[in-house]
Amino acid sequence: RINGDRLWDSLMEMAKIGPGVAGGNNRQTVTDEDGEGRALFQKWCEDAGCTMGVDQMGTMFARREGTDAGALPVYVGSHLDTQPTGGKYDGVLGVLGGLELIRTLNDLDIKTKHPIVVTNWTNEEGTRFAPAMLASGVFAGIHEQDWAYDREDAEGKKFGDELDRIGWRGDEEVGARKMHAFFELHIEQGPILEAEGKDIGVVTHGQGLWWLEVRLTGKDAHTGSTPMDMRVNAGLGMARITEAVHRTAMDHQPNAVGAVGQANVYPNSRNVIPGRSVFTIDFRSPDLAKLTSMREQLEKEAAEIARDLGLGIEIEPTGHFDPVEFDKDCVAAVRNAADRLGYSHRDIVSGAGHDACWINRVAPTAMVFCPCVDGLSHNEAEEISKDWAAAGADVLMHAVLETAQI
Amino acid sequence: RINGDRLWDSLMEMAKIGPGVAGGNNRQTVTDEDGEGRALFQKWCEDAGCTMGVDQMGTMFARREGTDAGALPVYVGSHLDTQPTGGKYDGVLGVLGGLELIRTLNDLDIKTKHPIVVTNWTNEEGTRFAPAMLASGVFAGIHEQDWAYDREDAEGKKFGDELDRIGWRGDEEVGARKMHAFFELHIEQGPILEAEGKDIGVVTHGQGLWWLEVRLTGKDAHTGSTPMDMRVNAGLGMARITEAVHRTAMDHQPNAVGAVGQANVYPNSRNVIPGRSVFTIDFRSPDLAKLTSMREQLEKEAAEIARDLGLGIEIEPTGHFDPVEFDKDCVAAVRNAADRLGYSHRDIVSGAGHDACWINRVAPTAMVFCPCVDGLSHNEAEEISKDWAAAGADVLMHAVLETAQI
Ligand SMILES: NC(=O)NCCC(=O)O
Ligand SMILES: NC(=O)NCCC(=O)O
Repeated sequence: RINGDRLWDSLMEMAKIGPGVAGGNNRQTVTDEDGEGRALFQKWCEDAGCTMGVDQMGTMFARREGTDAGALPVYVGSHLDTQPTGGKYDGVLGVLGGLELIRTLNDLDIKTKHPIVVTNWTNEEGTRFAPAMLASGVFAGIHEQDWAYDREDAEGKKFGDELDRIGWRGDEEVGARKMHAFFELHIEQGPILEAEGKDIGVVTHGQGLWWLEVRLTGKDAHTGSTPMDMRVNAGLGMARITEAVHRTAMDHQPNAVGAVGQANVYPNSRNVIPGRSVFTIDFRSPDLAKLTSMREQLEKEAAEIARDLGLGIEIEPTGHFDPVEFDKDCVAAVRNAADRLGYSHRDIVSGAGHDACWINRVAPTAMVFCPCVDGLSHNEAEEISKDWAAAGADVLMHAVLETAQI
Repeated sequence: RINGDRLWDSLMEMAKIGPGVAGGNNRQTVTDEDGEGRALFQKWCEDAGCTMGVDQMGTMFARREGTDAGALPVYVGSHLDTQPTGGKYDGVLGVLGGLELIRTLNDLDIKTKHPIVVTNWTNEEGTRFAPAMLASGVFAGIHEQDWAYDREDAEGKKFGDELDRIGWRGDEEVGARKMHAFFELHIEQGPILEAEGKDIGVVTHGQGLWWLEVRLTGKDAHTGSTPMDMRVNAGLGMARITEAVHRTAMDHQPNAVGAVGQANVYPNSRNVIPGRSVFTIDFRSPDLAKLTSMREQLEKEAAEIARDLGLGIEIEPTGHFDPVEFDKDCVAAVRNAADRLGYSHRDIVSGAGHDACWINRVAPTAMVFCPCVDGLSHNEAEEISKDWAAAGADVLMHAVLETAQI
């Protein structure tokens, strides 16, 4: 069994870096705070006897040697970056759960045949720079590295420049590493495990996703003196498309979700009809046909809404992945570990995207979920119990041990 | 006749201060740029032989003596502050048209019985600090001065502190001045005069207004892993209320308008269901019954929308005035001036709010409108012709001369 107190202490220590405004964290990717978090993780890994590699996307790889130096390593990990108003566990649990596993193997002097590598993937959240899971996407050959470097945040800063600025652009070629397997521990970020009183989610599938960015162009005009029939209102267009996103998701129930997360009007003045709006759409489903159908329905309805209001419209896809089916053997290793340790569990579909979804393309992959209070995530109030965290890390360790061979 | 070239040159000179991004202006109230604009106006007034007074709200009063020093002055003027993406004429024409009138009287060596005072009212636009027409509202006894000082901008800066910071809080008691009459020249900001080919609008009435600020409280949550029926989406609530504002205005046609100008969701992240939204509503009508009915209908519908979605809702009124009827004699003076000068004209209702709407409570008041291209205002592309500006300033001068007596 891993050391639940030590894992918890490390989680709390990491949460001091980039504190939020309401008890959570704001440690967005490739900010100064992200740099501080990385340095602390590196120190902990080196203290645990690991060697650290960093690739050109800034992803960190802490390696514990195996008895067979030629064997491909078993990888574990997740991400240390957070949402702007994020929780203390989303991503962090998977990275520090991996570190805890290594600390425990050290304590018990357990040697594995395959080396074990703990990773911190860069820019998983995708808020500051879309798309999400950017570094694991480049690693898996989904995105070009130069394209990733050119992603811009809301202030027009480029991902590559910011990575340089915080000093975490490594030398290693991205994706050159080959993996025996990859396991990611994560909080569920949804309500199912807690509601059913299960300790562990054995993640068999992940939802697919479409992210769209919509830009509407109307005409700034005076709210008082412009007659209703002369208005070209980009804010009203945004409102109607927001409703259409919701309706589209409802039309595809069950197993489909949709929402507008970012919403901006310009010039954003009380007495100016918005002449421009920019907003983002997030559609997900574990069913590829539904996912495709939602995007198509929305694009059709949005074009009609824009036409009715006389608005110009551009819709740009900013993120996409197909539904994922994780590797049967790796999934079985997670299920076996939970059984062996006596934790209650159920199979589950991941509602969120994860680095594991991309790595699944290039290595046998599976995920371990633990519950979180009220299913709440991407919220500073995100909460888990120490026991839940420990159970997740235990299952992670035992799945890894089965795969890495003692 | 006034000097149209000189007026135009002054308009272009003022437009250099606080340039916008698309040919217009961003010279918002009590910013450094506002301070620069004020200094230039003061210099011009002093060059024209006027003495300058500044009251505790920062309103500027440039006085040209009359032959009867005991006679109450005739006031003219408008405002030099602009929208964040505003035009070069909204407000500025009325202030510099007043200055041009004084320069012309100087050129022609015309003395008036009543002194003439040109004003620049502080914070007419109301974008940075709601409500609009703040200083004229305090002058007319509508708002308390301390309440006005406490108004906050989006960054939490207070109006009074900013007024101090730019060095334009004067000593004069606000509202102590008594007026023989007040005339305001302004661009129409709507399409009617241009469409009908009229040189001049004789403004008989002004629309009433309700400004509301709505704050919705839901729950930040993950866009992917939160089932549709567990969402408390403050962005969706904003969208529905935005549509309700539009529908409410359409239900009250003709002679009623409504729109949402500011719209903000939090945390404004692609993969977070907005847990909070803050947005502003602007309803106007020249008909008090319609104005009241729009507010009531919207408040009822907004409460239902919030209840349906499980959202907390607060609605705060941030600006209000009843429909205005201008002074019959002052209106006649404007109409007579247009007739005398041979300009085509029609009576018109102001769609926008103006300082004249408040001053009408404490002095006989009227307004002169000139056309603007496509009725466009609160847009950097706002445009007028030199001839339109000159005609407006001519009518202003002749209405003032009739009232101030040669
Ligand atoms: N796990 C997680 O929240 N990842 C961020 C990408 C997503 O929105 O699914
Ligand atoms: N004239 C003008 O645009 N005033 C600003 C206040 C309003 O929105 O009516």
